[in-house]
Amino acid sequence: MKLCAEDKLLHELLRLVPVPQDQPLGPGDDCAAIKCGKPGTLILLKTDCIAEDVHFLRSHDPAKVGWKALCRPLSDIAAMGGTPAQALITFFSPPDLDSTYWIKFYRGLGRAARRFGVTIAGGEMSRQKHGIAVSVMLTGHIDSKHLLTRSGGKPGDLLFVTGQLGGSIAGHHLNFTPRLQEGQWLAKNIHPSAMMDISDGLGTDLSRLARASGCGFEVNPESIPCRKGSDIESALSDGEDYELLLAIPPSKALLLQKYWPTAFPQTRLNRIGTLTPPQPAPPNWPGGWDHFEKN
Amino acid sequence: MKLCAEDKLLHELLRLVPVPQDQPLGPGDDCAAIKCGKPGTLILLKTDCIAEDVHFLRSHDPAKVGWKALCRPLSDIAAMGGTPAQALITFFSPPDLDSTYWIKFYRGLGRAARRFGVTIAGGEMSRQKHGIAVSVMLTGHIDSKHLLTRSGGKPGDLLFVTGQLGGSIAGHHLNFTPRLQEGQWLAKNIHPSAMMDISDGLGTDLSRLARASGCGFEVNPESIPCRKGSDIESALSDGEDYELLLAIPPSKALLLQKYWPTAFPQTRLNRIGTLTPPQPAPPNWPGGWDHFEKN
Repeated sequence: MKLCAEDKLLHELLRLVPVPQDQPLGPGDDCAAIKCGKPGTLILLKTDCIAEDVHFLRSHDPAKVGWKALCRPLSDIAAMGGTPAQALITFFSPPDLDSTYWIKFYRGLGRAARRFGVTIAGGEMSRQKHGIAVSVMLTGHIDSKHLLTRSGGKPGDLLFVTGQLGGSIAGHHLNFTPRLQEGQWLAKNIHPSAMMDISDGLGTDLSRLARASGCGFEVNPESIPCRKGSDIESALSDGEDYELLLAIPPSKALLLQKYWPTAFPQTRLNRIGTLTPPQPAPPNWPGGWDHFEKN
Repeated sequence: MKLCAEDKLLHELLRLVPVPQDQPLGPGDDCAAIKCGKPGTLILLKTDCIAEDVHFLRSHDPAKVGWKALCRPLSDIAAMGGTPAQALITFFSPPDLDSTYWIKFYRGLGRAARRFGVTIAGGEMSRQKHGIAVSVMLTGHIDSKHLLTRSGGKPGDLLFVTGQLGGSIAGHHLNFTPRLQEGQWLAKNIHPSAMMDISDGLGTDLSRLARASGCGFEVNPESIPCRKGSDIESALSDGEDYELLLAIPPSKALLLQKYWPTAFPQTRLNRIGTLTPPQPAPPNWPGGWDHFEKN
């Protein structure tokens, strides 16, 4: 299966640096998972970022941009089934930006932090010549027996997605709710064999989950839940959905479909396909957003 | 004592977000210190960043920029007396930059990681429209009884600095060695009452240490160790020294001055002054580099 340019570069870069050897999960999953000296508990580490004109515009409400900045890595903690803890905020501020921008930004960030139980433990601020950029580092924790990765899928596992996909640019990308409750519930009650969040589009992200699990996949395009105003192509390629993609053995599917509607009456859960033995992606399967694709 | 514009903005922003309440150290010191569930051990969290044309130029060797990116937050871990552990790297890459830049950058980053016992546990990459920027998140750990902060200084404590100050721009800022060994040795053997790293210039950073400790200070300008080619003004104001500034009670000074030369024959240690009861900064005391000073 084709690696996107971003994943290729990442693979190359990680060969040049020492990576954790004796830890449950190093780079390459939604979060790293690190032993913390307390038996049965793992610390989750995640870094994420947003840049002006890529993830948001100067004209967007800074409070919404602050909400988004924190909720993006929260979506990765959700994908591991984890509970978030502390965030550290780094921002780059261009000379033409007044510091009131950051006050509004921190209001939105603070709203997300209070809502999802995160405290801001530190940060760093710097000038840069052009453009606003923000990086958020987030810690979390999880019982080691509940940890979910993207690499545990098996041929025959059924594929599900939460919510709806596509057309995020119309507004969802600035006001989405990370699926923390859903992720924690799934980790404790169902324990999918693999889970990840959909941030670069189902096209890219399902390919990633399948590759990490050593599988191929089949999808019924008509079962993909499209957000209002979007179509299947857009659901596969747009990105910024911040929904969960999970693989579960057929034996657990009945349990999941029985209890989900009671646990999360507001959140759709759609079965979209199946993991298979390794095979090429379906014809015309699109990639999603790729920061390092040559044009 | 006057707050620099950067500290004022930080103070204002931190009022808008929840900060850790039941932890040994929240935002405002060199690192945050967080309980990890293992009695007697604290986790250190630090984020730092560098931006093109502020901290480095496009013409600088990318491997040296990679070294610097990791060594800057290592200097903060050093200032707590801590031992570094995992780093997460976020980089913003402009469209006019070839990905070979990042390969060279990661070589230098990897060299620093191996040298100082850090593993790279994750990261994130993004396009941005203009300019290179990098944020590094670093974890570390420390025995809670050895933790050093900038707020424990007392009137009468003697002030020391390691190494030499000023003129970093001539090269030191790209190839310095973070004072990890010195910081750990000091934490275990001397336990200064306050310590921090000097990154924004002694002018700004001594003011910060004194303010955090509720003290004033007196400095003998002639005792400030100036790097070759720099003068006292430059030693106070240039920044990017990555040396340690420490305050210790006079009772420990003899011990320090006796054992330091054997422990660190290559690293100078100069006594530069004294903490006093709260009082205004000396006349003409300069601030150092301030990212948010109005021009």
